[in-house]
Amino acid sequence: MEKLKKYVSVKDEDQFYHQGAVELLVFNFLLILTILTIWLFKNHRFRFLHETGGAMLYGLVMGLIIRYATKASDVDSGTVYECEKLKSGPSTLLINITNQVYEYQYKREISHHNVNGHQGNAMLQKMTFDPSIFFNILLPPIIFHAGYSLKKRHFFRNLGSILTYAFLGTAISCIVIGLIMYGFVKAMLHIGQLKGWEFHFTDCLFFGSLMSATDPVTVLAIFHELHVDTDLYTLLFGESVLNDAVAIVLTYSISIYSPKENPNAFDAAAFFQSVGNFLGIFAGSFAMGSSYAVVTALISFMHLTKFTKLCEFPMLETGLFFLLSWSAFLSAEAAGLTGIVAVLFCGVTQAHYTYNNLSPDSKMRTKQLFEFMNFLAENVIFCYMGLALFTFQNHIFSPLFIFGAFVAVFVARACNIYPLSFLLNLGRKQKIPRNFQHMMMFSGLRGAIAFALAIRDTESQPKQMMFTTALLIVFFTVWVFGGGTTPMLTWLQIRVGIDPDEDLKAEAANETASNLDKNTTKAESAWLFRIWYGFDHKYLKPILTHAGPPLTTTLPEWCNPVARLLTSPSAYGDQLKDDGTDYIINNDELTENYESSAHIPGPAQDRTGFTQATGKEHIHEGDLGLGGYELQLEHTAGQPQMNSLA
Amino acid sequence: MEKLKKYVSVKDEDQFYHQGAVELLVFNFLLILTILTIWLFKNHRFRFLHETGGAMLYGLVMGLIIRYATKASDVDSGTVYECEKLKSGPSTLLINITNQVYEYQYKREISHHNVNGHQGNAMLQKMTFDPSIFFNILLPPIIFHAGYSLKKRHFFRNLGSILTYAFLGTAISCIVIGLIMYGFVKAMLHIGQLKGWEFHFTDCLFFGSLMSATDPVTVLAIFHELHVDTDLYTLLFGESVLNDAVAIVLTYSISIYSPKENPNAFDAAAFFQSVGNFLGIFAGSFAMGSSYAVVTALISFMHLTKFTKLCEFPMLETGLFFLLSWSAFLSAEAAGLTGIVAVLFCGVTQAHYTYNNLSPDSKMRTKQLFEFMNFLAENVIFCYMGLALFTFQNHIFSPLFIFGAFVAVFVARACNIYPLSFLLNLGRKQKIPRNFQHMMMFSGLRGAIAFALAIRDTESQPKQMMFTTALLIVFFTVWVFGGGTTPMLTWLQIRVGIDPDEDLKAEAANETASNLDKNTTKAESAWLFRIWYGFDHKYLKPILTHAGPPLTTTLPEWCNPVARLLTSPSAYGDQLKDDGTDYIINNDELTENYESSAHIPGPAQDRTGFTQATGKEHIHEGDLGLGGYELQLEHTAGQPQMNSLA
Repeated sequence: MEKLKKYVSVKDEDQFYHQGAVELLVFNFLLILTILTIWLFKNHRFRFLHETGGAMLYGLVMGLIIRYATKASDVDSGTVYECEKLKSGPSTLLINITNQVYEYQYKREISHHNVNGHQGNAMLQKMTFDPSIFFNILLPPIIFHAGYSLKKRHFFRNLGSILTYAFLGTAISCIVIGLIMYGFVKAMLHIGQLKGWEFHFTDCLFFGSLMSATDPVTVLAIFHELHVDTDLYTLLFGESVLNDAVAIVLTYSISIYSPKENPNAFDAAAFFQSVGNFLGIFAGSFAMGSSYAVVTALISFMHLTKFTKLCEFPMLETGLFFLLSWSAFLSAEAAGLTGIVAVLFCGVTQAHYTYNNLSPDSKMRTKQLFEFMNFLAENVIFCYMGLALFTFQNHIFSPLFIFGAFVAVFVARACNIYPLSFLLNLGRKQKIPRNFQHMMMFSGLRGAIAFALAIRDTESQPKQMMFTTALLIVFFTVWVFGGGTTPMLTWLQIRVGIDPDEDLKAEAANETASNLDKNTTKAESAWLFRIWYGFDHKYLKPILTHAGPPLTTTLPEWCNPVARLLTSPSAYGDQLKDDGTDYIINNDELTENYESSAHIPGPAQDRTGFTQATGKEHIHEGDLGLGGYELQLEHTAGQPQMNSLA
Repeated sequence: MEKLKKYVSVKDEDQFYHQGAVELLVFNFLLILTILTIWLFKNHRFRFLHETGGAMLYGLVMGLIIRYATKASDVDSGTVYECEKLKSGPSTLLINITNQVYEYQYKREISHHNVNGHQGNAMLQKMTFDPSIFFNILLPPIIFHAGYSLKKRHFFRNLGSILTYAFLGTAISCIVIGLIMYGFVKAMLHIGQLKGWEFHFTDCLFFGSLMSATDPVTVLAIFHELHVDTDLYTLLFGESVLNDAVAIVLTYSISIYSPKENPNAFDAAAFFQSVGNFLGIFAGSFAMGSSYAVVTALISFMHLTKFTKLCEFPMLETGLFFLLSWSAFLSAEAAGLTGIVAVLFCGVTQAHYTYNNLSPDSKMRTKQLFEFMNFLAENVIFCYMGLALFTFQNHIFSPLFIFGAFVAVFVARACNIYPLSFLLNLGRKQKIPRNFQHMMMFSGLRGAIAFALAIRDTESQPKQMMFTTALLIVFFTVWVFGGGTTPMLTWLQIRVGIDPDEDLKAEAANETASNLDKNTTKAESAWLFRIWYGFDHKYLKPILTHAGPPLTTTLPEWCNPVARLLTSPSAYGDQLKDDGTDYIINNDELTENYESSAHIPGPAQDRTGFTQATGKEHIHEGDLGLGGYELQLEHTAGQPQMNSLA
């Protein structure tokens, strides 16, 4: 007991800061190691371990070291004190101990069966940081970046399919996993496991919904490196982005589903309330996210005569962009909606409207900033996942449940991809070929979102078992499926080495502002989408951005005075530039490296390219720039069998 | 009491996250307001309120609203509970309340006189966040950015003067403030104030050391906009950067000064131990910071034959750069040194060595990343300062102490600047003119560091009084002196509108690698510095960077085999480029705006400029780019009286 004094005396207050420093240093060290490893792998064109997989591996090793190499400190956190005077736990507690008052802050409620799990190692306790950090700090930049870097042209061309996979597919996956797991749980109860546990069908559905969030970051990185077919890439990327949003809201809706009587019986009222919750939260978050983005677009678009535009001050512009996007997340959270969903749609809307108004400098700054934040956050999460296997205190390994979950996850993925692809192919002009379907089936990796959803609540024993199982599934899928992507591509004979700019350029060449709408209809897009596209192009874009035709030409004649007021002066001259601003060049695409383009003189180098509003020349490849290009060349040259279309 | 339930029931656990969201949203809102205001001001060329002053003002208003417009919640945090079983406060406390176990986390020790101050508003409590956040999260990026953007050429030319002001000047300032405050405290005790307080001379010195950290961010921003004389700018910037480090270590050394007997009597042993502590911590932090930077330089410089250089992967490079720099901070903290000092020298060393090895893309990325983090962190701190005036619970306003502090701060600044300038002018070839001295005297603003040092410990009553006083001095100096900078420049007839590139270019023109050393000696630099410069140029730079002469020419002949091994292949061809890489173009300098330079065709546009290792064309102005240029033109044209050299 005496040794505890060092934790509380004022003189050693700094000890607390230093403790925090040590933990952060551990993470820094792991990330540095990961970066150096990835550098090594990139040099050897070794594509079996993606940086996220590497981060997870190092986290695992570090967790092992912390668990078994550091000695257990003597923190008596297993002791429970009685406090008769209190009726409930206040958020702050002042306690008088030997005539000195200490302030304690409420952390959480603990189930009785977990009290003993808190014994032991202080370092272990410190390393298992607050799960809310995942949701409030690490996930938002990742999700925003996904939305912001969505390749809109390809995305909208496949919108119908993506929405089907994301909404219907996730629902199917959730229900299938739920049903299979319910079977396994029943069997486990039958053979005498899980004695005294409360394990309802809703718990199984909860597990189903959290395991339905796919995260093919490894696969997509390899697709990007190898320049796999753009449609396949877009389908997978679009599905995984939207599917996260759906899975998060679904998990939340299920967790607040509370039937009045028997929790196993079906309660229609409660069910419909859950469906209503799902729709309300999804729509509310969508509205919140997009409205913040629209405000950003309006501010960055302001063209008052006496005012210098905001884009003259790139730092203010970037700051405003960042703060308003973050506010979308925070407002949604404060309003009881889902911040992650809000920030996703905020990202999509920012890319669609605000991006066009930004100065070239800010375009680059925002792009690079979010890319960097995404890179760091992703690696921290995967690193933490590795750590969690050994540092989390209340793992419950149940072989039968784990086996059941593996079966359920794969069956559910199959029930999602194959039937839906069949249905979609009935309507699609450009069918989704068999090998694409197999690849999508194979790319059903689970990652950051599934983990974050599982760690959010680990109080009850069923939830702890789910967390352990989810963690193992993440490990398995990231390492095995992630590592097997390249062989799988070869085996499925999927075309690689495609320049995604090529078909865009070809399209752009025979497109002018006037026949843009017609051209889009060539794709599979549904009538609903076509109507929206027309509305967006004719009215929203001119009001919110410098792009699009002037309102004076799109609005009826009697609206002319209003139209003139709302139209940017630059819109009149920019009509032909519009289609160029319709998509962002991002890490989905092969851009020429900055240096190399500057080195090569000659007519191919369009000098004005540097000032074009698309920012095409300004956006650099992230970690995959030149390396990716080289890999692509190697592949197209050395492995011609991979270039054949199945 | 019943209402408290909402804070603790598991169902409402999310309530806690949402609470955090609301607070962050308040800050976001304030920062957005600040940015919009600054934009407005920049449009009207209104230079009386810098963004930091604006952030402070909005924070103040928001603090007022939170204080008086939100109703006090009924958190019974004023109640102290007894716990006889505990002998000391453990870091985690499990409490059984009505048969449910809650986990509480140790926050801090509270003095008995502060217990009642904790009553009331939960919102107020939430807004006063942990002071360690300042030191661990908000200050490091600001300090690193200061080090990273140090204009080295001008800095080294004035190194002697800067070191004198920073070390000797800060010590003088600390002692003068300490002595004056001790007089005031004695007087206050004499007239019956401060009854029963313990207020020693060391407490006065503590106040002196924390008030010695100057932060002329407002003044420097205006200097930058108006392009004030570079020497004046460098003197002030260099002093303020180093002075922060000195003040922080000084404050820490004084706070652990513990004479054995009478705390008012002079204890030689304890005094020398404090001096030893100061030197040890300063040197240790310096070593820690620079060694991390050297490691970064070495990694980024690696040129193994089979390896692609790290600079081919800008994202990995930026990530490594960021993580290693942050590790410098964390390692220093973990080792009991001062992280802020470590991160400062890490920044300086990174700029000196690593920057030369980075790819053009990474140069831009790191520059912009830290610039952005600096911008956000600075505004958050100033915003929080405004808030703190109303949300901090234990202010002690003592008119006499405040008056004394104001007198002390100005007297101390005068005792620092004028005598030291006199002494320095004895040795300097280029004297520091009278009006520069007045301007430096005037620019003794207090800001983020003084505030962060004061808020670190607000337990005892003297410390609370110091905190309140420090806050008021920050308000006064930032608003009054910050706002008065432009009139003061006019009044002192200080030259503005100087192109800092011009004299650098002139220098560079008649400099070649061979006579570089001689040229440097023209400046005031001392022999010690000259030796170091030679060593750095001949040996360190070639080993750590692509710049500098090849080692084969600088090392003695018998070292040739080693030299060949260590020299970068590119060094042989780069001899003449070296002086260009010796400084970073940063926000101290007038760079042509990216867009405007791209718009203007013609021979002035050197195409190869884009690929030069200096990254000169790549680094953009932050928030001051074009705006600053315009302002400068306006001034040189409209106010010719300001252009005369006194």
